[in-house]
Amino acid sequence: MPRTKGDHEARRREVSEAVWRVLAAHGFGGLTLRAVAAELGASTGLLTHYFPAKRDLVAHALDLLEQRSADRPRRTGGPGLSAVRAALLDILPLTAEATAGNRIWVSSWDTALADPAWTEDYAGKYARSREKLRDLVAAAQDRGELTGGDPARIAAGAQAFVLGLVVQALFDPGAFPPDRQVALLDDYLAALTVPPAGT
Amino acid sequence: MPRTKGDHEARRREVSEAVWRVLAAHGFGGLTLRAVAAELGASTGLLTHYFPAKRDLVAHALDLLEQRSADRPRRTGGPGLSAVRAALLDILPLTAEATAGNRIWVSSWDTALADPAWTEDYAGKYARSREKLRDLVAAAQDRGELTGGDPARIAAGAQAFVLGLVVQALFDPGAFPPDRQVALLDDYLAALTVPPAGT
Repeated sequence: MPRTKGDHEARRREVSEAVWRVLAAHGFGGLTLRAVAAELGASTGLLTHYFPAKRDLVAHALDLLEQRSADRPRRTGGPGLSAVRAALLDILPLTAEATAGNRIWVSSWDTALADPAWTEDYAGKYARSREKLRDLVAAAQDRGELTGGDPARIAAGAQAFVLGLVVQALFDPGAFPPDRQVALLDDYLAALTVPPAGT
Repeated sequence: MPRTKGDHEARRREVSEAVWRVLAAHGFGGLTLRAVAAELGASTGLLTHYFPAKRDLVAHALDLLEQRSADRPRRTGGPGLSAVRAALLDILPLTAEATAGNRIWVSSWDTALADPAWTEDYAGKYARSREKLRDLVAAAQDRGELTGGDPARIAAGAQAFVLGLVVQALFDPGAFPPDRQVALLDDYLAALTVPPAGT
C-alpha cells in the first residue's frame, strides 16, 4: 500500500513528539538520534531520513520549542498593570506543563550559546519579548499604575527577574512552589507601583 | 626517568586547564574526551586514565566550575547596602573573565537539571548563596538602608534578578553592556531602598 501525504504528516508528528519527550526527560544534552529512536520504537536509520546530521535534530528541537512556546495558552490580563502581571506569570513554571517547557528552555541555553547563529536568534527572541513587555509597561504607566521612567528599562529589569526566578524554581521547586513564585513577582511589581493618590 | 608526584600534579593541572578551555568555547554540550584530548594535544587514551567514563569528565568539570567560582576575586563592599550591591555585582558578567565563567555556569544548567543528584547539589549551592545574601540584606535593614520585610524573601528576589540579568547579558552583550547591567541593578536596589529621613 503506497504511503500517503497524511501518513507522512502523522509520522512527522510522532517523531516531533518523541523529540519533545526526550528533551523533557534529558534536556538538550541527552538529545541523540539513538534516544529519539528508542523513544519512538524505531531504528536510527529511519531517523536519519528526517535528520541527516545531529545539527538537524537540534535545529528541529529548537524549532519545536519555539513553536510550543508560541502556541501555549496565555492568561488574559485586563489592561494596564494587570496585563504586565499576566505576561510575567505566563513565563513562570507554575504548572507541570510550564515547568516542562521551562526546563527545556533553560536546557537549550547551552546549545544556543555554543553557536553564534543560534545565540543571535535567541537574542532576537528575547529582544522581541522585551519590546512587547515595554509596550505593556508604557500602557500601565499611562494609566498611572506604574512609576515613570524608561519603559524599556523597566521591561528589561522585569524580564531578567522572571528568567532568574524560572531558573531558581527549576532547581529548587521545594523552595519556590507556585505561590512563592507569585508572591516574589508581586513584591517585584509592588516596588514599581505608584501608591494610589491619597495614601 | 620515573614520573614524580610533582609531574603528576602538573599533568592534572594541564588536564583541568584543557577542560576549562573546552567549556569556555563549547559549553557542556561540547565537552567530550575527544575535544579535551585535542585541546591538550594528547590521546583520548591518556584521558581515560583520568576520566574512565564521560560522567567522570562532567563531574570534574562541575567541580572545576565550583572551585573557580569560589576562588574568583570579590569586591570588598562597605557595610550595609554597599555590601549587598558588591555581592550582586560579583555575579554579573562585567568583565571578560566573569563572562566566561557565567557562560560556563549557564551552560552547566542543562547537565545539572538532567541528573537528580546534581540538581540537588545545585539547589544547595543556590540556597547557601541566598543565605549569605539574606544576612547582608538583614544588616542593611538594621542600618535603615533597605526597606523592611522578610530578608530571605528580599534575597531570593535579588538573586533571581541577577541570575536573569546574567542570562540576558550572555545572549545579548550589545544590549546589556556592563554599564547597563549596573544601571539595571541599581534600579532594582533603588526600589528596595528607604528614602533618607527628611526627604
